[in-house]
Amino acid sequence: MNIHKNLIALLFILFGYSVQAQNLMNKYNLMPWPNEIQENANLFSINPNLTISIKGEDSGRVNHAVINFLRRLSGRTGIFIDKGFPNTNKKSKSSINIYFDTISNLTLGEDESYTLTITNKHITINAKTDIGAIRGIETLLQLTSSNKTTYYFPGVNVTDKPRFVWRGLMIDAARHFQPIDVIKRNLDAMASVKLNVFHWHLTDDHGFRVASKIYPKLQELASDGLFYTQEQVKEIVAYASLLGIRVVPEFDVPGHASAILTAYPNLGSKENYDYQIERFAGVFNPTLNPSKEETYQFLNKLFTEMASLFPDAYFHIGGDENAGKHWNESEEIQNFKNTHGLKSNHDLQTYFNIRLEKILKKSNKFLMGWDEIMTKNMPTTAVIHSWRGKNEGLKESTLIEAAKKGYQTVLSNGYYIDRMLSVAHHYSVDPIGNATLTDSELKNILGGEATMWSELVTPLTIDSRIWPRTAAIAERFWSPKEVNDINNMLIRLEDVNHKLEELGLTHLKNKSVILRNLTNYQNISSLTVLSNICEPLKVYSRNKGGTEYKTFSPFTLFADACNVDASEALKFHSAVTNYLNKSTTGNKNEIISFLDKWICNQQKFSLLKPNRKLNEISSSYENLANASKIIKKKLSKKISKKQTIVLEKALKSIKNPFVDVEFAIYNDLKKLATQSKN
Amino acid sequence: MNIHKNLIALLFILFGYSVQAQNLMNKYNLMPWPNEIQENANLFSINPNLTISIKGEDSGRVNHAVINFLRRLSGRTGIFIDKGFPNTNKKSKSSINIYFDTISNLTLGEDESYTLTITNKHITINAKTDIGAIRGIETLLQLTSSNKTTYYFPGVNVTDKPRFVWRGLMIDAARHFQPIDVIKRNLDAMASVKLNVFHWHLTDDHGFRVASKIYPKLQELASDGLFYTQEQVKEIVAYASLLGIRVVPEFDVPGHASAILTAYPNLGSKENYDYQIERFAGVFNPTLNPSKEETYQFLNKLFTEMASLFPDAYFHIGGDENAGKHWNESEEIQNFKNTHGLKSNHDLQTYFNIRLEKILKKSNKFLMGWDEIMTKNMPTTAVIHSWRGKNEGLKESTLIEAAKKGYQTVLSNGYYIDRMLSVAHHYSVDPIGNATLTDSELKNILGGEATMWSELVTPLTIDSRIWPRTAAIAERFWSPKEVNDINNMLIRLEDVNHKLEELGLTHLKNKSVILRNLTNYQNISSLTVLSNICEPLKVYSRNKGGTEYKTFSPFTLFADACNVDASEALKFHSAVTNYLNKSTTGNKNEIISFLDKWICNQQKFSLLKPNRKLNEISSSYENLANASKIIKKKLSKKISKKQTIVLEKALKSIKNPFVDVEFAIYNDLKKLATQSKN
Repeated sequence: MNIHKNLIALLFILFGYSVQAQNLMNKYNLMPWPNEIQENANLFSINPNLTISIKGEDSGRVNHAVINFLRRLSGRTGIFIDKGFPNTNKKSKSSINIYFDTISNLTLGEDESYTLTITNKHITINAKTDIGAIRGIETLLQLTSSNKTTYYFPGVNVTDKPRFVWRGLMIDAARHFQPIDVIKRNLDAMASVKLNVFHWHLTDDHGFRVASKIYPKLQELASDGLFYTQEQVKEIVAYASLLGIRVVPEFDVPGHASAILTAYPNLGSKENYDYQIERFAGVFNPTLNPSKEETYQFLNKLFTEMASLFPDAYFHIGGDENAGKHWNESEEIQNFKNTHGLKSNHDLQTYFNIRLEKILKKSNKFLMGWDEIMTKNMPTTAVIHSWRGKNEGLKESTLIEAAKKGYQTVLSNGYYIDRMLSVAHHYSVDPIGNATLTDSELKNILGGEATMWSELVTPLTIDSRIWPRTAAIAERFWSPKEVNDINNMLIRLEDVNHKLEELGLTHLKNKSVILRNLTNYQNISSLTVLSNICEPLKVYSRNKGGTEYKTFSPFTLFADACNVDASEALKFHSAVTNYLNKSTTGNKNEIISFLDKWICNQQKFSLLKPNRKLNEISSSYENLANASKIIKKKLSKKISKKQTIVLEKALKSIKNPFVDVEFAIYNDLKKLATQSKN
Repeated sequence: MNIHKNLIALLFILFGYSVQAQNLMNKYNLMPWPNEIQENANLFSINPNLTISIKGEDSGRVNHAVINFLRRLSGRTGIFIDKGFPNTNKKSKSSINIYFDTISNLTLGEDESYTLTITNKHITINAKTDIGAIRGIETLLQLTSSNKTTYYFPGVNVTDKPRFVWRGLMIDAARHFQPIDVIKRNLDAMASVKLNVFHWHLTDDHGFRVASKIYPKLQELASDGLFYTQEQVKEIVAYASLLGIRVVPEFDVPGHASAILTAYPNLGSKENYDYQIERFAGVFNPTLNPSKEETYQFLNKLFTEMASLFPDAYFHIGGDENAGKHWNESEEIQNFKNTHGLKSNHDLQTYFNIRLEKILKKSNKFLMGWDEIMTKNMPTTAVIHSWRGKNEGLKESTLIEAAKKGYQTVLSNGYYIDRMLSVAHHYSVDPIGNATLTDSELKNILGGEATMWSELVTPLTIDSRIWPRTAAIAERFWSPKEVNDINNMLIRLEDVNHKLEELGLTHLKNKSVILRNLTNYQNISSLTVLSNICEPLKVYSRNKGGTEYKTFSPFTLFADACNVDASEALKFHSAVTNYLNKSTTGNKNEIISFLDKWICNQQKFSLLKPNRKLNEISSSYENLANASKIIKKKLSKKISKKQTIVLEKALKSIKNPFVDVEFAIYNDLKKLATQSKN
């Protein structure tokens, strides 16, 4: 064993961190990858006698984590662990011992570090705080390994801590309401990849989602009955705390206010306007009136009430996408600007924000807002949530600018998971990148948040849009910057993706639900094959062109069953790349097995009893099968001119989106058709 | 069209109800089958312009049902219905109009009748109460039909009402806690098949599952942290009411009391006994002490508190399975019996029950209990829940006895869905059967309840144990006794089974979750094939023999992925029956396709990367493949003596249970092996 250890030490000296890390990264499916990990040539065998002791004064967090650890370990291994609860005998040592010093009060920057040591007989987790301890428990669980006959934990020493203190996921519960079981299972998933901030977008044009006792019309008139009771909010906050996750609520003002103004139209910027809950996606004009004292009285009472539900020190007021149309159209507001020497709508919104900051200060909250709030006069006590960047016509994300100006700041630009871009894209976005910053500027960059806007997701599909991509983003926020090998990440992600199912996430299983429904409950295998090479249209183009979605439109369609990073498309891409690099028989046969699968399944599909949902898909599937047949022929011999024309036509059709999806294999098919030898 | 109508009328006259009904039962997948249904040769086309008006003063029930109707209809058809909410213009007529007279206060025997008329342009639902109206809406939704290009509602006239007033499902949330999202989705499913009583088994040896403000130790010490808050209870009761479902809580006393006594040991019958939350399945001795005045003080306060959470007039006190061991062993209790002239433990329990009845009367509740409470002196104001019958050594179920003795009574004997018996079995149990009863005796039979005891189910699997069998039981409770054709029921059930998925039930999708976990995330197709011919061991035998399950043992095993009424086993059974009746080539080939599937998938299975969970399965799969190979040969030619011996041996192994399942195809395989010609 010592020889082995020395060898690794030697290799480490010779090749530095990266080679050893790379080595281990191919071996263990940890995500986020820890700060430091070394093998120690031990092996802890998982058996029914496994016991756990909690060595520290617990607030309930570690107990909760340990019980879930036991259930999940038992569930995934099938081992009947005899003791289902932590060892209550304080003096005795168990096979797993968890030490920690203090109970975290879950404030920003809390110590989350831990060490984990696995030897043959014992496992030790050591942490400063209970939250560090539960982070370590998740790492241990991820290390569960299996050989032919047993399950075990491999002998490793882990020393770990996060790179950023703010590692978040935002869920928009306004555009499509997400019941608390959706929130809870996503909190579980967040904790499993060490995310620590749940940003809860609670109001928008489409609904106000928390019960107010002071302004009950908000939930009565502006939620369609879909809102959280205050008890439920407290339940979620308590549950998140148990997982070491802070909850930052967002009440978006002064824009995105259709719902609020449906309940309280007198606070609107436009008189006699018929405010209604919005049903479409987009940016809308209804805006709170910043020139009325009543508005501030309302926000004072409402925010004070809401602040009392959320113990966290940060309170998000939105502040984004106010084009100011209704402000421009209001004489009253224009007069107000003149009276107060506010030259632009930006100045007016700054005035509004500063008043909100004072209101929030009374509840001991810091104001946080989307980057539009970063105006000339905005005090640097505000936290800037950077969402705009190159896509929005800026030179770079607003994050660096905010940090340089002295604001604390959090990055979401690049982590908009609702845009349906590949995990590789999001993983490649580093919050700091190559920016040159002073230490204090660097310290202003708190971290980042993946944002799940919900125009196009319902409880049926939201998990599949959040996961697994958010696990890779979580690694970006936790792990050292140097952990950035996309191919290795993809391998580890596949394992994480599956294990997320044990937390009740529906991201995998609901695909079949949607496909069964689409076929009117026929055999879905042929449709599954198609769905694995199709991706939903990206960057909000799904809403364009065809039927415009409303909040109550069906999201049970083929596009909802498909996902970004289509699993078979990635595999086909490697097969094509290999074949075009080297046209061996083996490589050719791999291509042919893909083509055959599509040809054969299209035939199966054509035998299904038709219905109007399947009809919309059939011609595209047929084009794919036809193209596949000709390409297959072309791989072995020259094809006729006529066939070339047919192939080109089929490929042209394949390039076109259909039922809000696109063929993710198009580029590779095209390459194959044009570059293959015959 | 008139000719068609007349023809049906003529057929009706000629052949009576049954032929016409049979005809329609092969055409429409309604469940429960309505009291009366006739075709009217119309067809209502479902398109984006569909609108709905609620013509009646609504309590919220019909509005809720209409909105869900629109979402579900849109979800299953993919049609973008333009109006997502009921028409608020009271004067205008919509394409669907729902009329009702009164708002139900959800008491026993509430009118649930309705009529439904579907014509080309309009659909009308007429009901006395709002609950009748929502029952009609479910029927309409079940009629959603599809042809090649469109979705439509077929022209029918339905006149419907239930046979029994008490149509229940009991869920045991004590042995394995079931979070409120599990309860909610099961309430949705209940409403979809017109069940109207949710019996909530809230306490047992394994846990006390409701927060008490008066006796907080109950949840603090006797729930492992798994309990409903009072807010959650109210949420469930309100949600059930919205669906026209009464909630009857059960607090099981004086037996099944380990949890209560863990919190309050002073109320136990045995002094200095170490009361603990029970982890195993079974019947246990801890029992409340009926000789202590303190016990009644406790129950008085507790039941009064609990009664206030449940508006329903019925309150279930359990009362079952008290063997009286601890009573016999207590001198104090024996003295008490002597003092009060109570000769037996039965007399003592009657004394106890009568005191409970008085306590409950103060809260205006009727006492309900399992049939053990039906003792000589028990007043007939109590409701008898019949659970015992032939299986428990009685001549018949206690239901008829109770009805004759003047008790109101509800049947669960025959509807114990946790016994994992076939749907055909449960469907065949008629509450009244051939008993000859007077009208008033008949009236005492309120209905029945399917009972989902939870020793062997977790939130992961409970839906698959409740559904779809409970839909068939719901038909038994709602539809005329004459609706009893098992084969027809099975066809309609298959459709209902799939449509239940749209309510979020996990009964279908969690099979794959379990199988993915079992394979450590490999391809599950070969294991799926095996799971479709295996059934979990029946009638509590799963707990016997091998490892005894505790509440925290893994329920993520192969047996948990398998289900009663194994889908492919039923199909194989018909194939074998057909072939043995008539050994045509077609019939033979059908058999061979089954055998080939098993042979081929066993080979695929053998290529999976092994792990300890798969290892336990592999030899049984191999036996199946070997037997299949030889039987396949035998279907075409005589096999050698040696092969006959190998086949017999393989069949013998196949007969044996493995990993808590049995091959549901064994009998048919055996028949095929012995009766096929060669």
